[in-house]
Amino acid sequence: MDDRSTDFSPTSLPIGIGSRGSGHPRAWVASGRHAVDLSEIAAFGLLNGIGCPEGCFTKPNLNEFLAAGPDVWCRFRNRLAEVLNDGALRRKLDGVTASQDDLVMCIPTLVGDYVDFYSSLHHATNLGRMFRPNAEPLLPNWRHIPIGYHGRTATLVPDQSTIRRPHGIRLIDNEPVFGPSTSLDFELEVGFVLGTGNNIGEPIAIDDAANHIYGICLVNDWSARDIQAFEYQPLGPFLGKSFATSVSPWVISMEALGPYRIPSPVQEPPVAQYLSTEQDWGLSLKLEVQLSSAKMRQDRTKPVVITTTRFDDMYWTPVQQLAHLTVNGAMSRTGDIFASGTVSGSIPGSEGSLIELTHRGTEPLNLPDGTERSFLLQGDRITMRGWADNGSSSIFIGQVSGTVT
Amino acid sequence: MDDRSTDFSPTSLPIGIGSRGSGHPRAWVASGRHAVDLSEIAAFGLLNGIGCPEGCFTKPNLNEFLAAGPDVWCRFRNRLAEVLNDGALRRKLDGVTASQDDLVMCIPTLVGDYVDFYSSLHHATNLGRMFRPNAEPLLPNWRHIPIGYHGRTATLVPDQSTIRRPHGIRLIDNEPVFGPSTSLDFELEVGFVLGTGNNIGEPIAIDDAANHIYGICLVNDWSARDIQAFEYQPLGPFLGKSFATSVSPWVISMEALGPYRIPSPVQEPPVAQYLSTEQDWGLSLKLEVQLSSAKMRQDRTKPVVITTTRFDDMYWTPVQQLAHLTVNGAMSRTGDIFASGTVSGSIPGSEGSLIELTHRGTEPLNLPDGTERSFLLQGDRITMRGWADNGSSSIFIGQVSGTVT
Repeated sequence: MDDRSTDFSPTSLPIGIGSRGSGHPRAWVASGRHAVDLSEIAAFGLLNGIGCPEGCFTKPNLNEFLAAGPDVWCRFRNRLAEVLNDGALRRKLDGVTASQDDLVMCIPTLVGDYVDFYSSLHHATNLGRMFRPNAEPLLPNWRHIPIGYHGRTATLVPDQSTIRRPHGIRLIDNEPVFGPSTSLDFELEVGFVLGTGNNIGEPIAIDDAANHIYGICLVNDWSARDIQAFEYQPLGPFLGKSFATSVSPWVISMEALGPYRIPSPVQEPPVAQYLSTEQDWGLSLKLEVQLSSAKMRQDRTKPVVITTTRFDDMYWTPVQQLAHLTVNGAMSRTGDIFASGTVSGSIPGSEGSLIELTHRGTEPLNLPDGTERSFLLQGDRITMRGWADNGSSSIFIGQVSGTVT
Repeated sequence: MDDRSTDFSPTSLPIGIGSRGSGHPRAWVASGRHAVDLSEIAAFGLLNGIGCPEGCFTKPNLNEFLAAGPDVWCRFRNRLAEVLNDGALRRKLDGVTASQDDLVMCIPTLVGDYVDFYSSLHHATNLGRMFRPNAEPLLPNWRHIPIGYHGRTATLVPDQSTIRRPHGIRLIDNEPVFGPSTSLDFELEVGFVLGTGNNIGEPIAIDDAANHIYGICLVNDWSARDIQAFEYQPLGPFLGKSFATSVSPWVISMEALGPYRIPSPVQEPPVAQYLSTEQDWGLSLKLEVQLSSAKMRQDRTKPVVITTTRFDDMYWTPVQQLAHLTVNGAMSRTGDIFASGTVSGSIPGSEGSLIELTHRGTEPLNLPDGTERSFLLQGDRITMRGWADNGSSSIFIGQVSGTVT
């Protein structure tokens, strides 16, 4: 198996929203390096009788389809596999097939609320050490509940966005000074896309979470470390994060990820009942981050991989996150996205952010163009990629890039 | 002047979204204790030629109207005053006028992002003292930037909602235990409703903020203090707040509040340029919180006023908040709401939350039904009310209530 292929496996059936040429955004299913127009597959009658809402694939987001619920997701997946594996049908669909390169992709869902968790033990420990050098790095609550906060939905941005360096107030020689962030960073995360929500006052039980979580994407939680450090107490990150969060375009269903489910780490101390399940909700994912500077692109130097890490040992699972998110009765809605928090491993080079990779900028990375990076510079492009693997097979789960301007 | 009247002045022209009987939600303008159907006023042709988008008052939120921008808001206000002051026209509108009691009111806008600030010096000091007893109560950032965080939009709830007591993990004898919150609280806040937003990467300059902020409402930021205390470090409040936030139904425009604009407190140290303006953006508002227990309602005892306070000396103004919110390039959108943070005064009885009024429950309030309150009990109804006043006139700015179940 080619475990670095960026072709989508014909079995993974990722769905997303994109437009071709001057066409309106609509739903597509990806296969290999191509994508097929789902609204046209539906127009051929090939998705009849499985419960997909009429016209749901002509919409500018996946919400109507997702709201149809898990039985429909399952029948849709089965039917789509039949259609795309049928040589004659596939030829019939040639005219409504595009190269992925010819599509401009959008945020796949209309997101009502976006939540960002903080579920990697290594990341929380690394950041605790840097932000609170004189205290225990892991706060007392961390092993008891999945810590998270609400992010800004207006600034969820699609693949290939330009990311404007944010201005804000940060300390220079211990004085608060306004200006552009000088410690712009990325955070490598996995996003979970909510298929169906819950009513206010009716928490989602952990063992019912599979009926609510449709699938995954990749998320880059761009962070301005200097702005964040100055503002984050006591109410959490705000302008240090709210300028942009990139979301990958193709959503891989949890069903496609079934072969890549693994046990998650043992939690000690044991967690509360509402966070406890016998089901395996770890995911065997390999993730990487590439950096390409403007000069590297000009020189036609290949992007350099600056992080390779795994999602496997994330302490808190997505179903724990969703059960937690709603246990107080909070409503969630179709299309909501919650992100895992930065995925960092325990060994050098497996950290999911520059602040960790460079030890707060004190040990810069050396790039092939001869320059160093403590934090991101103008023109730097960050690309995140992921694969699910299990020793016998590997599927590409997508990528998301953004370029600093 | 009757400075406790809860009739809306004929000059304040508050607008909101409500439904009568089995009718669809639509826009209304309030006057006295009545409201007139704006879609019918428009259908009579009385709002022609002033730029209101066709059909905008038949929508289930005010967003289309608000997005039309400040010139339209101004012409709308002038025209509406003419129409409602014309006796003959007013009689013509009798058939499309309802008692406010006959309307079921909604959240007035479709809210893309909800942000909660923390702008009362007294409140921040009081809470700092309680949550961090061994440290300086006001953190070093507080006088330099308006501290805030993103809240949950899905659980913004309308007037007269029931508020389910949230469950979560809180410390009992220093052990994390799951169960219902035993320190359910309210927070008295003023909300600012965004009329027009900004593009990503294009901050709103402070002196342009008046073109973006349409008006105000009242907000009850319900808070579970025990859940909040356990979870809030390092990423801020989450489940301790996200179960419900009540929003009052009638939006009073900034134009109606013109006579009640006052200088805001001098800020020392001076703030950064982007937070600095010569304009007066303080608001002379009187606010109160009433509590009525289930037993008091059964005994037909009047609600008891437990807080009377003023908005006048809030340290950070709404235009500073909006300039801050977007200075990093974050996009905001029509219908967004940002709240002031708890409005607390400096004298006992003027605090905007129970945790402050009762000194973390150690000095309970005595209610007329013979019981004490440290925090809210089942059946307690909290009603917040406000008036703008300036010594010569006073206008009612609305109310919002919610009942704990």
